[in-house]
Amino acid sequence: MAQNAGDESRELRELYAAFGDEHLVPLWTDIADLMPGQPTPSAVPYVWRWRTLYPLAQRSGDLVPMGRGGERRAIALANPGLNGLPYATPTLWAAIQYLGPHEVAPEHRHTQNAFRFVVAGEGVWTVVDGDPVAMRRGDFLLTPGWQFHGHQNVTDRPMAWIDGLDIPFAHATDTAFFEFGPDRLSDERTPQRSRAERLWAHPGLQPVALLGRRPSSPLAAYRWEFTDRALADQLAVEAEGHQATVEPGHAAIRFSNPTTGGDVLPTIRAEFHRLLPGTRTVARREVGSSVWQVFSGTGAIVVGDVRHRLEHGDLLTVPSWAEYRLEADTGLDLFRFGDAPIFEALHQDRVEVDGVVVRQAGRSIATGSGR
Amino acid sequence: MAQNAGDESRELRELYAAFGDEHLVPLWTDIADLMPGQPTPSAVPYVWRWRTLYPLAQRSGDLVPMGRGGERRAIALANPGLNGLPYATPTLWAAIQYLGPHEVAPEHRHTQNAFRFVVAGEGVWTVVDGDPVAMRRGDFLLTPGWQFHGHQNVTDRPMAWIDGLDIPFAHATDTAFFEFGPDRLSDERTPQRSRAERLWAHPGLQPVALLGRRPSSPLAAYRWEFTDRALADQLAVEAEGHQATVEPGHAAIRFSNPTTGGDVLPTIRAEFHRLLPGTRTVARREVGSSVWQVFSGTGAIVVGDVRHRLEHGDLLTVPSWAEYRLEADTGLDLFRFGDAPIFEALHQDRVEVDGVVVRQAGRSIATGSGR
Amino acid sequence: MAQNAGDESRELRELYAAFGDEHLVPLWTDIADLMPGQPTPSAVPYVWRWRTLYPLAQRSGDLVPMGRGGERRAIALANPGLNGLPYATPTLWAAIQYLGPHEVAPEHRHTQNAFRFVVAGEGVWTVVDGDPVAMRRGDFLLTPGWQFHGHQNVTDRPMAWIDGLDIPFAHATDTAFFEFGPDRLSDERTPQRSRAERLWAHPGLQPVALLGRRPSSPLAAYRWEFTDRALADQLAVEAEGHQATVEPGHAAIRFSNPTTGGDVLPTIRAEFHRLLPGTRTVARREVGSSVWQVFSGTGAIVVGDVRHRLEHGDLLTVPSWAEYRLEADTGLDLFRFGDAPIFEALHQDRVEVDGVVVRQAGRSIATGSGR
Amino acid sequence: MAQNAGDESRELRELYAAFGDEHLVPLWTDIADLMPGQPTPSAVPYVWRWRTLYPLAQRSGDLVPMGRGGERRAIALANPGLNGLPYATPTLWAAIQYLGPHEVAPEHRHTQNAFRFVVAGEGVWTVVDGDPVAMRRGDFLLTPGWQFHGHQNVTDRPMAWIDGLDIPFAHATDTAFFEFGPDRLSDERTPQRSRAERLWAHPGLQPVALLGRRPSSPLAAYRWEFTDRALADQLAVEAEGHQATVEPGHAAIRFSNPTTGGDVLPTIRAEFHRLLPGTRTVARREVGSSVWQVFSGTGAIVVGDVRHRLEHGDLLTVPSWAEYRLEADTGLDLFRFGDAPIFEALHQDRVEVDGVVVRQAGRSIATGSGR
Repeated sequence: MAQNAGDESRELRELYAAFGDEHLVPLWTDIADLMPGQPTPSAVPYVWRWRTLYPLAQRSGDLVPMGRGGERRAIALANPGLNGLPYATPTLWAAIQYLGPHEVAPEHRHTQNAFRFVVAGEGVWTVVDGDPVAMRRGDFLLTPGWQFHGHQNVTDRPMAWIDGLDIPFAHATDTAFFEFGPDRLSDERTPQRSRAERLWAHPGLQPVALLGRRPSSPLAAYRWEFTDRALADQLAVEAEGHQATVEPGHAAIRFSNPTTGGDVLPTIRAEFHRLLPGTRTVARREVGSSVWQVFSGTGAIVVGDVRHRLEHGDLLTVPSWAEYRLEADTGLDLFRFGDAPIFEALHQDRVEVDGVVVRQAGRSIATGSGR
Repeated sequence: MAQNAGDESRELRELYAAFGDEHLVPLWTDIADLMPGQPTPSAVPYVWRWRTLYPLAQRSGDLVPMGRGGERRAIALANPGLNGLPYATPTLWAAIQYLGPHEVAPEHRHTQNAFRFVVAGEGVWTVVDGDPVAMRRGDFLLTPGWQFHGHQNVTDRPMAWIDGLDIPFAHATDTAFFEFGPDRLSDERTPQRSRAERLWAHPGLQPVALLGRRPSSPLAAYRWEFTDRALADQLAVEAEGHQATVEPGHAAIRFSNPTTGGDVLPTIRAEFHRLLPGTRTVARREVGSSVWQVFSGTGAIVVGDVRHRLEHGDLLTVPSWAEYRLEADTGLDLFRFGDAPIFEALHQDRVEVDGVVVRQAGRSIATGSGR
Repeated sequence: MAQNAGDESRELRELYAAFGDEHLVPLWTDIADLMPGQPTPSAVPYVWRWRTLYPLAQRSGDLVPMGRGGERRAIALANPGLNGLPYATPTLWAAIQYLGPHEVAPEHRHTQNAFRFVVAGEGVWTVVDGDPVAMRRGDFLLTPGWQFHGHQNVTDRPMAWIDGLDIPFAHATDTAFFEFGPDRLSDERTPQRSRAERLWAHPGLQPVALLGRRPSSPLAAYRWEFTDRALADQLAVEAEGHQATVEPGHAAIRFSNPTTGGDVLPTIRAEFHRLLPGTRTVARREVGSSVWQVFSGTGAIVVGDVRHRLEHGDLLTVPSWAEYRLEADTGLDLFRFGDAPIFEALHQDRVEVDGVVVRQAGRSIATGSGR
Repeated sequence: MAQNAGDESRELRELYAAFGDEHLVPLWTDIADLMPGQPTPSAVPYVWRWRTLYPLAQRSGDLVPMGRGGERRAIALANPGLNGLPYATPTLWAAIQYLGPHEVAPEHRHTQNAFRFVVAGEGVWTVVDGDPVAMRRGDFLLTPGWQFHGHQNVTDRPMAWIDGLDIPFAHATDTAFFEFGPDRLSDERTPQRSRAERLWAHPGLQPVALLGRRPSSPLAAYRWEFTDRALADQLAVEAEGHQATVEPGHAAIRFSNPTTGGDVLPTIRAEFHRLLPGTRTVARREVGSSVWQVFSGTGAIVVGDVRHRLEHGDLLTVPSWAEYRLEADTGLDLFRFGDAPIFEALHQDRVEVDGVVVRQAGRSIATGSGR
């Protein structure tokens, strides 16, 4: 050991300088930051108001042409905790996309997984893997990784919707590929039902010609009419005294991949929640981040100690392991997406309900709730 | 070696006698039977006519009371190759079940998996796990193993349908358990939609409160309206020039478990096929046995060299590895069930199409079709 | 209903006669047999003594030539409950196979899965998929379905061992294929270690060039030295106070497929058990049948109320759902194989320990033991 | 559209300013960076020399005490492309850890998965989940997430080794939990074989008492003697003309989880490669990053156009999708770890060999190599 404090201090400085020269960093000075007791997200809960978002998207429609190179008129939510990066959370990208009357967004493909959710409007067809898919209010639409896709607005009115992708995750892990496709859409027709729906949107039925597990759902469109009815059904079954809802007055469906029963995309989970007027949910914490959007009604999401009031179209980010509760004033319909499939696949998931861990590392913990 | 032929013969006789005494059987005399070059089923292709079956069921309704002990007024197809055993094939049990006006079949449960298919009629509710499920023409209904179930006819008309179970398989392998339930149905209501449907019959949507993989489908009823539409959609998509059908003019759906994407029951596969008028399919052979029933139309199934003409309600057994082709005169709708999930789970599956093995031991063989 | 008893009786007779004519069988008269409360195996517990088996095999060696057609000098255990069929249980075939000095059993392949267990002796090489595998006392050796295999005895002494296959299961389900191979072995060398062992018998290590899940284990030989050591290690760890054994004084290993962590063959489970002198195990019942063979020591297996005393080489069948307990006089080493993988794959498994169901339909039931 | 360029420019500036105010970022200006044609890692290939690393670790041993708070005397490789963060790659943390004579590193646990690889030395026991595991030259040792672990050096000589963890991945995704354990080790004994090895290090054998799939391998130590023998065996089998090696002269084993056949940890893959003198491998690119360390011999890894000469103990990072080739001067033994399990689980994997994509999105592409 060094002979005295001064020597030691000098020697330590020299050691740390040598670390720097050699591209080394000691753990012992950084461990509290690197390995905290629980997740300490940089991302923060934050609300983007639809009444702000939509006019800015509209203004972009006036000023910014659509086309090759820029590819999409999409404006991303940049979480204030993430240093200006265009990321809603560390793993998720969320944007409002806007397509003016008769505009076309040219085809491209990328390994990032994508979905669209339509909070209002209609009139755009997204062409996914050569299959034109109508986009209408309340619909949830998929563009799995590496499928060519473009959009066209066939009406005289603009349309906007929400895009969700795993861009930040793919970027952080250096896994993404991208290719331009044709400038013109591969199929310009505008059928009411896509081929994907005609083949896959029949409950519990699969086309024998197309059987087989797929990492992403082959069902390109999850229509509002089905979502709405499923939620109403859950509440009706609950009212008859049977198990159906997450908790009293709180119905929820998960969009799923019919070929596996799992999530629609390998990296993204999507759900729709409906709360009866006056419902207050229990508190919940989950490893992984989420974005919530109000589809209809008014209410609030309380994250930690802060109550975020929300109305039609508003978006809120909930960081990993932040405690949150939902509150409905009127009946409240909420769309939600998150990154949970990543952590469940890697056994890093953890879920706490009302202060009790109910799921950890791929395993349910509560008695009787199986895996 | 023995000194001469006579001695040897005597010594061999003594050896074989000793085998018999000690409960031993030499392989070398039996190997051709025990380990044939390819499956040599005892079961035979055989047709049961609806015009024969239904009147006999009706007659049973007149003569045989329903109730505890007998449990069900079900009359099983006994394959002529199987020595009078009440087995349609070595693994599958199939029966016509008949319930007179206002009759009740009391509740019981068994580990054997069961389904019902309704070729005609309506008016019975089957109560599965406490959930009343309407039975109507064209519906495919599930009773997974170990769920209590009973039936009631609430009308003034009798109703008959087809039951399918894995009784022979369970019997051969000594795996079955059975319990009587209450004599009265646990829920006598007659809703148009069961709870199972309200929770699970929304395409690609799962109730968050009930998530998790299950060995059998939680969807108790697959309604005809969905099956019919899915088949019509496939043929329409094919007509537009896209891949959708098994082969030209031959649409097919598989009933599936939405929690896994796999078969509805661990031991039973069920499908519905629709052929356009005049369609002749390619020849096909599969390890495992099937039962086909004509739902509507007329046509034939050719098994080996024999052409079996079929019409509404007729049932045909197709033994393992028998080559078969479908032929439609009119448009032809066919229900089919089989035991393929057993052999796929155990990597004993083999499928030949038009003389070429396309799947073997859990693996697709044809280029590009791998799972 | 019929007017009087006589008429009714006649009408019923006519109905039943019609059933017979039409290849139909009513359920209501047969349900108790077809769907019993619990498994009612025809197979019985039965002991084949090594001191009887081996001399008969030897005698066959004197009298019955080996070669093409007969293929193998194997003598099968025919369970006395199974009507003279050469089946140890409804799913399992078990035989003693005997190869005289310098004899060769020619190559063939079949979809039935096979293993060999060597209760005594050495000097035979089995050539599996072109890879010569030495057979020695205590070794457990695999011949997965559809791999060519033959045997040669390179010594001046005969050798006998036990074969286990899923012949009855394959026969009952009509799934089996068989092909003759070359009369001469494809590789006549006699290495101490097979290629399979050199590639796969390193604990937790897999060859990168051969990665991928396989339905059957690629490890052709599980050597006695490893089995012996694993069992000794378990007992030593138990003695130090840590969880290692099935129950006090009862060590057990399962032979496993290193590419999946599951059973060695899709249809057959194999284990080795070691009991310390004086150990009496708790009672156990399992869906599915097993065959036990004593490798060394003396003791008993109590099935139901009957105590079967066993010594070196003796084989005992345990039918499905029969309660059994193991008892060791001396230290007792037991090899065991069974059909459990079939039932676990199909969610038909059930296990009871000491009167309590601990596993059912693919799921552990005891608290905290979930998979 | 705006009336003239000046107005438009002003209006655009106002729009972009509004984006900034509202925490929004347009995609069209960033898409080339966010969604590049192929991965564009910030991390760079970089070599850390053992002859530099080890003396700095030694110097730390002189100057920095070990203990609670600092927890470990570990010095992390900070990839020069990653802005001074202590990350070897965007997902992987790698460090040299140094424990002086008779020092103890106290127990803690974290959800991050960890391993140790010993390039030289011995004398430390790592206590994982209460089980003391000896660390010796060439050994690969596991500390799966959430298991308590500490280390002690029981000798008069210091010891150093390499740690690998998924800290950057866990940090980026906000998933990590950490807990302090006791200051004193839970078991201070120093057995030659750990309990984990006595229970799990028998090839293809699993303890019946501990069966079940686990996300991480239960085998705490993969000993050099087995790794060395497996690699030698592969080369010997190759020399006899059979498939065994990745390519001529290039043997490789993957450390695997015996309960699943998959990777040892959900987020980390580990392999050992051996090249015969003079071997040059084909070029390879993979989605995901790796760290290589030379165990013995001299040679080079060529990444892109740069040839990195390496010798005993040197570490090299290979970023995602960088093309690399291995070159052996002498016989060359290399340890390697990477993050591939993350991307295979999420179907984001892609592998190119010699310019041809052979695996993509969970599926082998080359004929006949499918899983």
